[in-house]
Amino acid sequence: MSKEKVIIIGAGLAGSLLSIYLAKRGIEVDVYEARPDMRNAKISAGRSINLALSDRGIKALSEVGMDEYMLREAVPMFGRLVHDTGGNTKLLPYSGRDGEYINSVSRGGLNIALIDEADKHPESRFHFEQRCVEFDCRSGNALIRDERSGDEYEVSGSTVIATDGAGSAVRRSMMSGGVPRFNYSQQFLEHGYKELSIPPGRDGDFLMDKNALHIWARRSFMMIALPNFDGSYTCTLFLAHKGDNSFESIDSGAYPDAKPSGDENMPSAALIRFFEDHFPDTIPLIGNLEHEYFTNPTGDLGTVKCSPWNAGGKALLLGDSAHAVVPFYGQGMNASFEDCRVLNELIDECGTEWETVFKRFNEERKINADAIADMAVENFYEMRDAVADPVFVRKRELETKLEQEHPDYFSKYSMVTFREDLPYSVAMRRGNAQDELLMEICRKETDVSKIDTEDVLRKVRSLGV
Amino acid sequence: MSKEKVIIIGAGLAGSLLSIYLAKRGIEVDVYEARPDMRNAKISAGRSINLALSDRGIKALSEVGMDEYMLREAVPMFGRLVHDTGGNTKLLPYSGRDGEYINSVSRGGLNIALIDEADKHPESRFHFEQRCVEFDCRSGNALIRDERSGDEYEVSGSTVIATDGAGSAVRRSMMSGGVPRFNYSQQFLEHGYKELSIPPGRDGDFLMDKNALHIWARRSFMMIALPNFDGSYTCTLFLAHKGDNSFESIDSGAYPDAKPSGDENMPSAALIRFFEDHFPDTIPLIGNLEHEYFTNPTGDLGTVKCSPWNAGGKALLLGDSAHAVVPFYGQGMNASFEDCRVLNELIDECGTEWETVFKRFNEERKINADAIADMAVENFYEMRDAVADPVFVRKRELETKLEQEHPDYFSKYSMVTFREDLPYSVAMRRGNAQDELLMEICRKETDVSKIDTEDVLRKVRSLGV
Repeated sequence: MSKEKVIIIGAGLAGSLLSIYLAKRGIEVDVYEARPDMRNAKISAGRSINLALSDRGIKALSEVGMDEYMLREAVPMFGRLVHDTGGNTKLLPYSGRDGEYINSVSRGGLNIALIDEADKHPESRFHFEQRCVEFDCRSGNALIRDERSGDEYEVSGSTVIATDGAGSAVRRSMMSGGVPRFNYSQQFLEHGYKELSIPPGRDGDFLMDKNALHIWARRSFMMIALPNFDGSYTCTLFLAHKGDNSFESIDSGAYPDAKPSGDENMPSAALIRFFEDHFPDTIPLIGNLEHEYFTNPTGDLGTVKCSPWNAGGKALLLGDSAHAVVPFYGQGMNASFEDCRVLNELIDECGTEWETVFKRFNEERKINADAIADMAVENFYEMRDAVADPVFVRKRELETKLEQEHPDYFSKYSMVTFREDLPYSVAMRRGNAQDELLMEICRKETDVSKIDTEDVLRKVRSLGV
Repeated sequence: MSKEKVIIIGAGLAGSLLSIYLAKRGIEVDVYEARPDMRNAKISAGRSINLALSDRGIKALSEVGMDEYMLREAVPMFGRLVHDTGGNTKLLPYSGRDGEYINSVSRGGLNIALIDEADKHPESRFHFEQRCVEFDCRSGNALIRDERSGDEYEVSGSTVIATDGAGSAVRRSMMSGGVPRFNYSQQFLEHGYKELSIPPGRDGDFLMDKNALHIWARRSFMMIALPNFDGSYTCTLFLAHKGDNSFESIDSGAYPDAKPSGDENMPSAALIRFFEDHFPDTIPLIGNLEHEYFTNPTGDLGTVKCSPWNAGGKALLLGDSAHAVVPFYGQGMNASFEDCRVLNELIDECGTEWETVFKRFNEERKINADAIADMAVENFYEMRDAVADPVFVRKRELETKLEQEHPDYFSKYSMVTFREDLPYSVAMRRGNAQDELLMEICRKETDVSKIDTEDVLRKVRSLGV
C-alpha cells in the first residue's frame, strides 16, 4: 500500500478509534481536535458521564485489541430496573440468555484509553485545540484554527474523515454548496435532558442495585441512572422543555403546588416538590439536588440524517457527523464504532481508492444508520410510556421466557444490542414484525404463564421476515 | 388598530400579494427585494415561465380584487394531454364537472401585476436591489445590503415576514441558533429540470392543443408543456441528473448510439437522438432545440420543511421559505397565496398580536404545508409512471365518470385543486383512501363502462374518511 495520509477531524470516540484502525494499517493519520487534550483535564468525581457499551462496539474494540482492557472498567447491566413512585422496583432483563448484558463505561475513560492506544503508533498524531472551521470540497483542504493563537492554516492529505460530531463543520461545508443536492434533516424532541449524580456510599459502595440500568418511567417524562465504576451513578432526567411537568415549569417555579417557606425560592420549591411527587426514592441519594439541578446545563435531543456522506473521494462523514441519534437505544457510540469496523473492512476490499470506499460505505451503512436513528426515537416512547404499561410489561416477560426456552429467539432489543452480525436494518424489520405479533398476544392474555411459547415461536417463524 | 409597520423580505409572488393584504388593512409595509425591479427588466419573448393558477390561489387573488384581471391573461387547461412516442395524444380531463380547470399564467406577468397593485397603496413601499443577508431573532432587526453600493444597514418594524423563498436568509438565521431546536429538512429528487420553449406559429397561433397541459410521460423521465398567452409553450424536461437517460448522459455525449456525423459534436448528437427516441413530435416544434438545451440551466428539485415557522413575534416564514415544494401538483404558488389568505384571516381574529397570530398560523398551516409537499412528490411518480400505466388510465376514466354522474364526488386531484374550502391535509387523507379503493377496482375490471358507479360511490362513502 502506498504511503497514504488521512486527516481526521475530531478526536472523540469515533475519531480516536478510527485513528487506531488506520495507523495499524500503516496509514499516516493526523487528528485535529478543537478541545484541549482531555488527558490533562481534571474530571471531577461523580461527574463522569457514562455510556452503554454493547456487542457492536465491543466487536470493533476487540479488533484493535481494546476490548478486554475496557471491560475491566465496565459495570455490567443485566436489565432495566423499574422504580415506581412508591419506591418498589422490578427487574426487566435485557435478555433471557446468560451472558447477554450491556456495559456502563466512562465516556472520558474510554476516550482517553483510545487516544493512548493510538499514541503507541508512530503513524498517528493528535493535534489538540486545533478546530476545523471550514472544508473545501473541491480541493479537499481543511481550514484549521489554532484555538490558542487564533492563527488559521490549511491542511490536506489523501482524504479527510470527519468525526467532528453532530455539529460537524465539514458537514456544514458540504451542505452550503460543497456537495450538490445534499439531503439533510435535523429533528428535535420536545424533551431535553439534564444530568444529576448520585455519589458512592461512605465506603465507596453502590447505593442502589449495581448491575442494572435504573428507570423511573413516568409516561410524559422519565429519569434513568447508570452505575459508574467508582460506586456513583449518573442520572439523566428527560423532561419536556415546556408545558406541564417541564424544565420551564420547574425553572419558573410554576410546578403545581410549589410552596416556598421562609428562605426557599420558588424554583427550588418547585424542584423539590417535583422530585417528591415523582422520584421520591432518589432524593436521599442525589447528593445535592438543588445544586446539581440548577448548575448543570439542560441539553437538547436531536436526530441528524443526511446524504451523501461523502464529497467524492475528498471527505467522508462518519459517526455522529453523519448520523446523530437520540440516546434511547444506547447505540450512538456502538453505531459509530461499527462505522469504523465497516470502513476498515471496505479498505481491506477496495484499498485506498477513497471514492470507491466511501460510496460503498454510504451504500452499506446509510440504511442501517437510518434504522438505528428511528429505533432510538421509538425507544424513547417505549422507555417513557411502555415500561409503565401492563401489556408491554407482559410482552417483555413473554420475550424473556421465549429467549430462555428457545435460544434461537431474539427480541428486537437483543438483535440490536447483542447480534453484531445482524445489520440494524434487519434487526428493525424483524423486530417490528415480532413486536406487533407479541403485543397482540399479550393484549389478549393477561397471564403470561398460560401462553404456549412453542405456538408463539411458530407464529414468529411464519412472519417470514 | 395602532400604526403597525411590517417588514417583508422578498417581493416575489407571496411577498407582493401579502403587501397588498397588509396595506389594505392600513398597515405600513416595507418590502426589501434582492433583485432589480422586474418591471424594468426585459422579458424575452417565448422565455416567459408559466405556473398553474387554481382555486386556492384564485380565492386569495379575488380577496384583493385581482382575480378577474389575472384570469383575462390566463390560458385555461382542461386536462392532461398525454403524448405517446408515436405522436398520438389522449386527453385525461382534470375533472368530470364543467368549470373545473386550471390556468396557465405568466409568473413574471402576475408578479408585476401584484407589485403594481400594491404600489397603489401609499402604505406599501418596495425597495429593490436590497438583499436581506442576516436576521437577528432577538432584536428583530434585519441586516440589508444595498446590492448596488454594497452598503449594509439594519431595518426593523413591528415584525418581519420572510417571503424570501427556498433559500431564505431569515430561515438560515433562525436555524443557526436564532430559534432553539429548529427542525429542518431539505430533500432533493434525483431528477432535475430544464426549460425549453415552443414558439408561436407564424400568425401567433398555438402549434398544439391550446387548452391542455401536455405530458410526454416516459416512466423514468418526462416532459410537460404549458401554453402561454402569446401562443408559445414553455416545456419543462424532468430528467435524472445521473445514470441512463440523464442530463449527464446527454451532456457527456454518452446517450446510447449517439452518432455524430461531420461537424456535429457528441452532446448535440446525443440530445437529438434522445429527443428522436422519446419526444419525436416535439422536435419540429421547439425552435432551436440544441441552443435551448445547452444554453438554459439545469435546476434541482427539492422539498424544504421546517418548524417552527416563527421566531416568537419577531419573524414569520411564509410561502417557499417555510415550505418549498416540488412543482408536480402545480400548487407551490397556490399554497403560498393560501398562506397569505389564512394569515390575513388570523389578523382579523387576533389583531396584530404577532406572536399569537404566528403561533396560530403555524398550528393551522404546518399540517397542510406538509400534506401538499408530500402529495407533490407523489404526483411526480404519478405523472411520470402512472399516466403510462393502463390501470391508472382506467382509474382516471372512472373518476371522470364518477364526477360527471355524481357531482358530489371529488377525486384527490379535484379536492386539492378545486376545493379551496378543504384543507390540503383533508384532501390528502380522503384522496389516498379513495385512490386505494379505485385502483383496486380498476385492477380487476379492464372495461370501465362495466363498472357500476353507484356501487363505487357507496364504497367510497363507507370509507368514512
